[in-house]
Amino acid sequence: MPRHKTPSADTCPVARSLDVIGDRWILLVIRDAFDGIQRFGDFQRSLGVARNILSDRLRRLVEAGVLRARPASDGSAYQEYVLTAMGRGLFPVVVALRQWGERHLFENGERHSLLVHKHSRKPVPFMAPRGQKGMVLSAEQTEVQKVP
Amino acid sequence: MPRHKTPSADTCPVARSLDVIGDRWILLVIRDAFDGIQRFGDFQRSLGVARNILSDRLRRLVEAGVLRARPASDGSAYQEYVLTAMGRGLFPVVVALRQWGERHLFENGERHSLLVHKHSRKPVPFMAPRGQKGMVLSAEQTEVQKVP
Repeated sequence: MPRHKTPSADTCPVARSLDVIGDRWILLVIRDAFDGIQRFGDFQRSLGVARNILSDRLRRLVEAGVLRARPASDGSAYQEYVLTAMGRGLFPVVVALRQWGERHLFENGERHSLLVHKHSRKPVPFMAPRGQKGMVLSAEQTEVQKVP
Repeated sequence: MPRHKTPSADTCPVARSLDVIGDRWILLVIRDAFDGIQRFGDFQRSLGVARNILSDRLRRLVEAGVLRARPASDGSAYQEYVLTAMGRGLFPVVVALRQWGERHLFENGERHSLLVHKHSRKPVPFMAPRGQKGMVLSAEQTEVQKVP
């Protein structure tokens, strides 16, 4: 997947990711793209965002290689924005944001949307970092080796 | 863990999470907190961020219940900022951001910091959403059930 922007010189992958997607509107656009939204007007209605902000975020996402713009599949004059392979790679990021919100930002019994496995209709289980043998790793059990 | 801010009325957990942490500086502060940084001056040196921006982000994180401010453990006049249980719950978010960056924002052979299991010194394996039986789920195999 080609990237069109020079990546930051940072050797921390978290920082480099945030240079591309460290923005609330950007992450909401990505969420909506995973939900199947493709057109400018549909993003706008879903997000209630100003046109100029949405234009800017879509442009940045296309430039970064996260979204691809293509002519609408129905032959109309519209453009569609779809996730590239690089963009679909953000699925764990969106799931992690969702699961943190579910656990910490809703009261008991408060209703929220649910991510389910299409086949079983069951909720997607909590996703956690795991070690080589499959055991869940807490942050305390890990450390970051910096580039010397 | 008490929250001090009224959560957004949004029934989408992704959107609610982004109301709290949908900001590049906020997420970089959280990354640094997982790395053990606790003091204002150390965050500032690590991030190269303006004092007023850093103050604002630390204040917002304390208000949201993600960080807790406490007197410095060495008895000095400094304050320390530490992750609460709610904040430590963001580990999967930081890991997901890291792993997306590693896969998509570095050239082959380009060096980056590495998250390792302290015990084995091995890199933390790629984290992916999984179904009830442990198989990796792609976004296409899932869907979001909205609140009616």
